[in-house]
Amino acid sequence: MMPVIQMPKGFLATGVNSGVRRYRPDLGIIKSEFPCVAAGCFTKNTFKAAPVLYNMDLLPSKSIRAIVVNSGHANAATGEQGMIDNLELATQTANTLGVEQNEVLVASTGVVGEKLPMMKLVPALPQATRAFGDTINNFALAIMTTDLVPKFCSETFEVGGKTVTLTACAKGSGMIHPNMATMLGFVVTDAQISTELLQSTLRSVTDESFNMISVDGETSTNDMVLALANGASGASIVEGESLKTFTKALKTVCESLAISIARDGEGATKLITVHVHGSADLELARESARMITISPLIKSAIHGEDPNWGRILVRLGQTGVPAELFTKLKISLQGICVFENGAPQPFDRAAARQALQGDHATIKVFLGGGPFEATAWGCDLTKRYVEINTEYS
Amino acid sequence: MMPVIQMPKGFLATGVNSGVRRYRPDLGIIKSEFPCVAAGCFTKNTFKAAPVLYNMDLLPSKSIRAIVVNSGHANAATGEQGMIDNLELATQTANTLGVEQNEVLVASTGVVGEKLPMMKLVPALPQATRAFGDTINNFALAIMTTDLVPKFCSETFEVGGKTVTLTACAKGSGMIHPNMATMLGFVVTDAQISTELLQSTLRSVTDESFNMISVDGETSTNDMVLALANGASGASIVEGESLKTFTKALKTVCESLAISIARDGEGATKLITVHVHGSADLELARESARMITISPLIKSAIHGEDPNWGRILVRLGQTGVPAELFTKLKISLQGICVFENGAPQPFDRAAARQALQGDHATIKVFLGGGPFEATAWGCDLTKRYVEINTEYS
Repeated sequence: MMPVIQMPKGFLATGVNSGVRRYRPDLGIIKSEFPCVAAGCFTKNTFKAAPVLYNMDLLPSKSIRAIVVNSGHANAATGEQGMIDNLELATQTANTLGVEQNEVLVASTGVVGEKLPMMKLVPALPQATRAFGDTINNFALAIMTTDLVPKFCSETFEVGGKTVTLTACAKGSGMIHPNMATMLGFVVTDAQISTELLQSTLRSVTDESFNMISVDGETSTNDMVLALANGASGASIVEGESLKTFTKALKTVCESLAISIARDGEGATKLITVHVHGSADLELARESARMITISPLIKSAIHGEDPNWGRILVRLGQTGVPAELFTKLKISLQGICVFENGAPQPFDRAAARQALQGDHATIKVFLGGGPFEATAWGCDLTKRYVEINTEYS
Repeated sequence: MMPVIQMPKGFLATGVNSGVRRYRPDLGIIKSEFPCVAAGCFTKNTFKAAPVLYNMDLLPSKSIRAIVVNSGHANAATGEQGMIDNLELATQTANTLGVEQNEVLVASTGVVGEKLPMMKLVPALPQATRAFGDTINNFALAIMTTDLVPKFCSETFEVGGKTVTLTACAKGSGMIHPNMATMLGFVVTDAQISTELLQSTLRSVTDESFNMISVDGETSTNDMVLALANGASGASIVEGESLKTFTKALKTVCESLAISIARDGEGATKLITVHVHGSADLELARESARMITISPLIKSAIHGEDPNWGRILVRLGQTGVPAELFTKLKISLQGICVFENGAPQPFDRAAARQALQGDHATIKVFLGGGPFEATAWGCDLTKRYVEINTEYS
């Protein structure tokens, strides 16, 4: 059974079927009783979808009241009409909720290049409003595309005797290589925090969570992570202990959602965690970890439960790991050391194959020495991925 | 029937089974009666295989007499022992041929991280020497790994009344994203040319041919293209008309082989040609074309004969095509315009699907205006690719 995840104080959420999908919810709204401080991280794809451009223009803000999200159509590559439709969706949502248009953020996900189905979405807004509740569940369902499972979680912590709740939700399964994929993430909290602190914390946490997952190396036009804080808990987050606690909770929810996306990658049967440590360079550690997660040869080998570590080494060389580190590298698969001191290490191949059974493979790489480390998450490459994507539009 | 391709004057080739493979030839040698001017382009992967490092050290040279190639083992990630084995293979080949070790180039392809099977290769050298002939056919077979077909071709042209022959051969099917995959290419000619001209011409032709193909975005540790010119035709190639003619012939053979590799990509059923034109920037044109050829979503859509042009647009944005070019872009699939003036163009989807049947799909992108263009070649992504690579080592 799907767990029920509560919204923080002052937040409500809804998800209904507008007729774009056959049965599933496809239109979701989150609203806050109070104006929210809001921050966002957006795709680096140069052809940003209409809702991305719209939100980038509004943020950061101290007066956001709602987020409206549709699934099925990305409103990307739709030109001027896309911007007009996006604004109309924001305006109609604001009217239905009794707030201002510039207090409403928008996100879209689905097929690229098709216009928003305004004749279905707008009439469904009153229905959505009637369905508001204090859990995130229906909203989480409404934002899914090829996702097999909804992705949401919640953390609570105490600040000055007051309980703060962080509730978050994401979608994503294909076109996942965020450089914020279509990956959408939403975090809402009743903490009280400044726009600047919310933005900088969201940025650094996104870099270590959503930006470290990959299904297929494709960076979408619609990626975004939005965070809203309405202050309803009365707990104030400022530089120091309270910010550390807040950052830790934010990292917990974002990492948990990011891992859910990687595990639910299109066609995936195994989550792949790549941990690179002992690096003299943070960017090289991150890039090495990500390059391994997007390698079709490594992804295929893991799918085949084949301890083909040579492909990992090749990929590190393609990433640009300096040749002189070769003799200092260590590579392990499921804790079995396969390469060290510049030479393949003898290992029991049958035992390694057995260790690669199950739904989670871990690759560890020691980059020769240094203080930096990075973790990236991906999934195996399967025939099902090819099936899903030969017939999507 | 396989065509028979003659070697240029003064060159002989051979390919025999050393016992690494079950039946197929796996050890090939090209030799020249006369010392050759030799040039090479090598992988940019930082972990270069032993034969790559060895050849880089010898080239450019004016006294190369032979190239020895084994398939089945890449001699990559084999450390010091790999260098020792490589030198031993060169030395033994030289002894068998009666030339010097530093007149012999080496190439290897196959599984990464396993030692060269010296006990099989060395004893097979005399047998290989006895089998020398004036066609490249057995050599072309000996260098194959997962290739389904051998890849070779030949061009002749006249310079000053003398006939010059250029014969070339390549292998490659997986781990193909050359940045000069394992892709090996060998060009031999009886033209007379300087080391400098041969190297600069090979470099520029490689950049427009082998470096513009991709099967899976993986850059091997063993990629190399070698060119040998022994002067036996008596035709001298110098700056001017003769160099233009030589460059054109070299481009013809390299492009032909590069396209053969893309078409023979692991599991491929369709060749994909991406032509980017009207670019203000050559590098952007090349990178855009290549990024489209390595996109798993575009490759899957082409496999499904699905005119899902939105994925092409997303990929251009991921490559960094400036957002302001959006309204000037044109995208066509099999000659059918699908995007122009910043908006999707109406097209007959059934006709487009039909046009995508067959074994060759062409994507054309106009990047808004400018003198530069680039062509890249790739292949569709199929379930067979996943099958081949889940069980390789």
